[in-house]
Amino acid sequence: MSELELGSRSSWLSREDLDAARDRMPVLYVHAIPVRVDHAGAVTSVGLLLRAGDHGTIARELIAGRVFHGERIRDAVLRHIEKDLGPMALPLVPVSPTPFTVAEFFPTPGVTAYHDPRQHAVSLAYIVPVSGDCSPQADALDLAWVTPEETSDPALLADMAPGHGALLRHALVHLGFDV
Amino acid sequence: MSELELGSRSSWLSREDLDAARDRMPVLYVHAIPVRVDHAGAVTSVGLLLRAGDHGTIARELIAGRVFHGERIRDAVLRHIEKDLGPMALPLVPVSPTPFTVAEFFPTPGVTAYHDPRQHAVSLAYIVPVSGDCSPQADALDLAWVTPEETSDPALLADMAPGHGALLRHALVHLGFDV
Amino acid sequence: MSELELGSRSSWLSREDLDAARDRMPVLYVHAIPVRVDHAGAVTSVGLLLRAGDHGTIARELIAGRVFHGERIRDAVLRHIEKDLGPMALPLVPVSPTPFTVAEFFPTPGVTAYHDPRQHAVSLAYIVPVSGDCSPQADALDLAWVTPEETSDPALLADMAPGHGALLRHALVHLGFDV
Amino acid sequence: MSELELGSRSSWLSREDLDAARDRMPVLYVHAIPVRVDHAGAVTSVGLLLRAGDHGTIARELIAGRVFHGERIRDAVLRHIEKDLGPMALPLVPVSPTPFTVAEFFPTPGVTAYHDPRQHAVSLAYIVPVSGDCSPQADALDLAWVTPEETSDPALLADMAPGHGALLRHALVHLGFDV
Repeated sequence: MSELELGSRSSWLSREDLDAARDRMPVLYVHAIPVRVDHAGAVTSVGLLLRAGDHGTIARELIAGRVFHGERIRDAVLRHIEKDLGPMALPLVPVSPTPFTVAEFFPTPGVTAYHDPRQHAVSLAYIVPVSGDCSPQADALDLAWVTPEETSDPALLADMAPGHGALLRHALVHLGFDV
Repeated sequence: MSELELGSRSSWLSREDLDAARDRMPVLYVHAIPVRVDHAGAVTSVGLLLRAGDHGTIARELIAGRVFHGERIRDAVLRHIEKDLGPMALPLVPVSPTPFTVAEFFPTPGVTAYHDPRQHAVSLAYIVPVSGDCSPQADALDLAWVTPEETSDPALLADMAPGHGALLRHALVHLGFDV
Repeated sequence: MSELELGSRSSWLSREDLDAARDRMPVLYVHAIPVRVDHAGAVTSVGLLLRAGDHGTIARELIAGRVFHGERIRDAVLRHIEKDLGPMALPLVPVSPTPFTVAEFFPTPGVTAYHDPRQHAVSLAYIVPVSGDCSPQADALDLAWVTPEETSDPALLADMAPGHGALLRHALVHLGFDV
Repeated sequence: MSELELGSRSSWLSREDLDAARDRMPVLYVHAIPVRVDHAGAVTSVGLLLRAGDHGTIARELIAGRVFHGERIRDAVLRHIEKDLGPMALPLVPVSPTPFTVAEFFPTPGVTAYHDPRQHAVSLAYIVPVSGDCSPQADALDLAWVTPEETSDPALLADMAPGHGALLRHALVHLGFDV
């Protein structure tokens, strides 16, 4: 959910139009947590992007972005995964549209567990097994695969972009891990 | 999800602004299915509104409406229930933000099971037990409580507004009924 | 959930032991609905087994069976899929242990939507994408892939084993289909 | 899930019968997390029992216990809540049978996040709003209401019975808190 994604990479709305719409309605997002699974479907690792922010900062992120007008949620999830992991990732987008959670991002901190200074965004979050070759695309500097246990490392969590750490922990708890 | 709700009853956006935003982004909605439960939490009846539409039509509807900018989902659910059932309904809005389903309404029929000729709307759907006195408000003509078994009556389903019948059936199946 | 599965095919309990245990505690089951998906994760078809019952009857069934003592739920799901679809089915067992529904089967009809004259069984139900070659094994006579739309055919539903039709419909509704 | 619950308080199976059954099949449990909610359904506090164990230990626990043969899951949840919180708690058992998670307890540590040295138990976990007067019953020494924020206190988590801390954290994350 970087500024870049919402600005130059988004072809359907100009920056001005998006800013105007953002002030009027909650913006619908999707978050995807890419995972590797073993033969029995148990998650063995989670994919985290390393991305450069606007002001020289570098942060670990999940995959996230807007749902476009006229686009199905599952197509938005697929588009954002391919945008960040490349065309050979072979993601399996969940069969059901029900997300494992809904994350409500508010410009004011403390309303919910999630905060986004730029906007009121509501994100549907999905866990997405990928079985192919993943390579970071566009402005992603790196893609790291970490084990569920490693995600509770305070150093890793400190590197997560705002809101992404909470959502990562939620995903792992939902998967049955105690992190 | 009547025109009225999106027009005159919505104070945060002018009709022109809303029409403009609708053409640019999916509009975030909530649907609420009000239910009566017994002492063990089993649903005994479902509340359906009878509402007059724009062109002299009358249809049975669930409770539905937009999420406003800056509004939590649970506050939107509460607002729409109070708007339709009155201030004494004593709803118990679900403790978790995860909906039982996400209904994607497209202007073009056939993209998903849901269709809305006016807009691309994405609705988070919740089942809401109410324990107080419910009285239809505003433009709702009547409120009928029907048993889960009665909801499979073809005559009742034929009276449901577009999309509302499918969502009602989904809710009942989610509750464990075979309708 | 045929007698055979609970009898001769189950090596961990003798028929007598199982009958004794069945009279004392609810028996934990899993149901799996095998599906084929397209590139965006949307379900294109559902796999139904044709199985011969004890008394010369033939019925369409989902995949189902007991969870063994000491066995993880995901290993039970995998075991029953391989038992019915063969070792090359390449199932993707869901990443989360949360089922899409819990089906409670009672010996007395009418307690819930599910009925099993032999026992009180509680089944956790999962939708499982399979990407490999499926061939019916053991006592399954055939495996048919039907589209979501075809599952609402009354003739097909009439062929479903008791309880399996309701669970199939629940799965499709959960997937976002209006059947 | 104390020994007492499984022994003297359980009238349907003798201790010997239960021990025999436990060696043969996974035992079906329910866990209930009692909560207080505000007018919009947001959780304001969580109820934790203080219970004396077999060996002079004292631990904080959630509500838990077996599902009896012939008993619906929602009736088991209700029975265990009334057993621990008294007959005036006015619980609202969830309308849907789908749990927020399934906790698999194994005698061997490390198979899953949950461990029970006595048995292989599979527990369906539910969050249950209570609106009445709660008073600890039977062998519960105390009932404490803690805020969601307080549940992340390491001292409190250290007092939780094995497995109960992980399940409490899972419940809070499911509710949208970042603990």
